[in-house]
Amino acid sequence: MSEKLLPLFGNLTHGVYVIGVSAMGRKNAFTAAWVMQSSFDPPMLALSINPAHSSYPLLVAGGCFTVNALGKQHRELALHFGTPRKEDKLASVNWREAGCGAPVLVDALAWFECSVVGELASGDHVLVLGKVVDGGLLDVEGIPLNYSEVCGFDSSSRLLPDKMKP
Amino acid sequence: MSEKLLPLFGNLTHGVYVIGVSAMGRKNAFTAAWVMQSSFDPPMLALSINPAHSSYPLLVAGGCFTVNALGKQHRELALHFGTPRKEDKLASVNWREAGCGAPVLVDALAWFECSVVGELASGDHVLVLGKVVDGGLLDVEGIPLNYSEVCGFDSSSRLLPDKMKP
Repeated sequence: MSEKLLPLFGNLTHGVYVIGVSAMGRKNAFTAAWVMQSSFDPPMLALSINPAHSSYPLLVAGGCFTVNALGKQHRELALHFGTPRKEDKLASVNWREAGCGAPVLVDALAWFECSVVGELASGDHVLVLGKVVDGGLLDVEGIPLNYSEVCGFDSSSRLLPDKMKP
Repeated sequence: MSEKLLPLFGNLTHGVYVIGVSAMGRKNAFTAAWVMQSSFDPPMLALSINPAHSSYPLLVAGGCFTVNALGKQHRELALHFGTPRKEDKLASVNWREAGCGAPVLVDALAWFECSVVGELASGDHVLVLGKVVDGGLLDVEGIPLNYSEVCGFDSSSRLLPDKMKP
């Protein structure tokens, strides 16, 4: 990316989510910021995912994913699932299975289960379109975490201008 | 959408943007929340737009759009461009043309000019993928406006749970 354009991207607003996937007897979960609603009826979410990520083949094979919305109290959870590590990241947190088998974090603010209904290549990422087939509200008081509040869980933190750094 | 799922969507985090389009001698601009980054290299943004919106044919014909990021001081601007009206919404604000002719709001925090490089039907909306070809930082101090801070500029406000209402 042109250095001139770098500081602009901190003016985009993203939340912080843990995406869950399950297929071929394996489960995984990872922190993502590039998630948004993309349809009212039927309700759909769009996720931009790096296809080189180890969760991507599970997402494609399983044909589904969960979106677990994190709140301001979940900075540690965002870092936990945003840091590559060899051990099973799910082993130390509370989770259960959504209908399709993908993990639901029971401590999140809310969760969505999405069926994959479309894909579009997007540069170094892939836009995945998910139809919301189930979901639940887990915390009616918590306020969603903003991506600008968690600096450093991935390489995009360098895009944050100084004014947005915690 | 199932009533059960309605309260979940307030746990998604979106910013507030004015999208500019230009084609066939016409220009238009409208407020949108469903915008996110979707690639680092090349830099890309994804926008979910209602294809019934009067700006959609201009976006398709022009093959480009601008994304003007609004800050906390821009609630009125969000409402201005988010309210359907017969008069030219651009007539009363400061703007100039991006390279492709689409309007850049000179009072926004930052602007991006995007070339349309892909589309994907998404329920009652269309995901439009834009490659960022130009842009500028206009306000280094302003903090981006969160969609939850502007209630009521469109029909999605009913999705906000009470805790998120201003």
